[in-house]
Amino acid sequence: MNGGDVFIVCVTGMPGAGKTTATKALVGSGFTVLSMGDVVRREAKKRGLRVGKEGQKQMMFALRAEGGPAAVAKLCVEEIRSKSLQRVVIDGARSVDEVNAFRGVGEVKVLGIHASPSRRYELLSSRGRDDDPLSRAEFEVRDQRELDLGLGKVIALADRIIENESTSIEMLDDRVRGVVVEWQENA
Amino acid sequence: MNGGDVFIVCVTGMPGAGKTTATKALVGSGFTVLSMGDVVRREAKKRGLRVGKEGQKQMMFALRAEGGPAAVAKLCVEEIRSKSLQRVVIDGARSVDEVNAFRGVGEVKVLGIHASPSRRYELLSSRGRDDDPLSRAEFEVRDQRELDLGLGKVIALADRIIENESTSIEMLDDRVRGVVVEWQENA
Repeated sequence: MNGGDVFIVCVTGMPGAGKTTATKALVGSGFTVLSMGDVVRREAKKRGLRVGKEGQKQMMFALRAEGGPAAVAKLCVEEIRSKSLQRVVIDGARSVDEVNAFRGVGEVKVLGIHASPSRRYELLSSRGRDDDPLSRAEFEVRDQRELDLGLGKVIALADRIIENESTSIEMLDDRVRGVVVEWQENA
Repeated sequence: MNGGDVFIVCVTGMPGAGKTTATKALVGSGFTVLSMGDVVRREAKKRGLRVGKEGQKQMMFALRAEGGPAAVAKLCVEEIRSKSLQRVVIDGARSVDEVNAFRGVGEVKVLGIHASPSRRYELLSSRGRDDDPLSRAEFEVRDQRELDLGLGKVIALADRIIENESTSIEMLDDRVRGVVVEWQENA
């Protein structure tokens, strides 16, 4: 397979901005979703660690300690190669190092999904995933942790940013698909 | 004057994203523009330093060494207070510390203007201001310098982000005014 044929969309954004919704919009357009969080959860399970908020965090730090700042991205790259995937959406790239790890595999575009802190807090509070924050203080600590990993740089350097401020899921879906169709047409 | 009456819009974004165009859109809607770059240039002139790319950079570092990471913002705050400004647009907030310096004066909203790196390089190359980069390498070094100051964090935590990817100046103007009118209506 020619590496040039692989097209990777890295979806990035702060916690609760709507990354997972945005990635799902591309399923059905021939894209396979790889969630960096899922890859970490799977690796934790494989190693017999407790899955959940703490286990996942520990696993992520362990992977980075072993394989450097792009360790989780490298696990995704292995999966892209082993399954010969051609159109891939990556949910949750957090650093420029991670994005660059994908550049060796094919064409990479970075799509940022953005919402204000208050909108994200509202969305996360109603989501109730087990790693979601319970208080505004916890939310801000988590934001800071993600920013310290370099997430702000990835967002600032994104190829496109879609706002999810007062957007319905259908509107977000349409806008995500529109941007990706445009990229594919200009590729 | 009641401090609560002051409304400050901090316009942020990477070099070349369209911050200055966006701030100009609000002139005529009763806003006074304070450019953090101009404040630095003015301070450099006052101290007899050479204005220009290097003088400005030196002045900014000197001000931060004297007054901390929010030093330039504090000069703007002095100006807002001494002139009793009520509606202010700040062009060029680069760090969360700077944004927070404004929060003591009144209500603050952060508006990010975003364009992809290739679009920004194109825009900067055609602008020709004396601190604009001459090569792609210089452009990337400048991006990195801004990100190291914490600009990515400000963008990631913005209240709204407007894309300036394939936007005419008129469209950008309209969108900026629209967002600010919405903020004022909900204030």
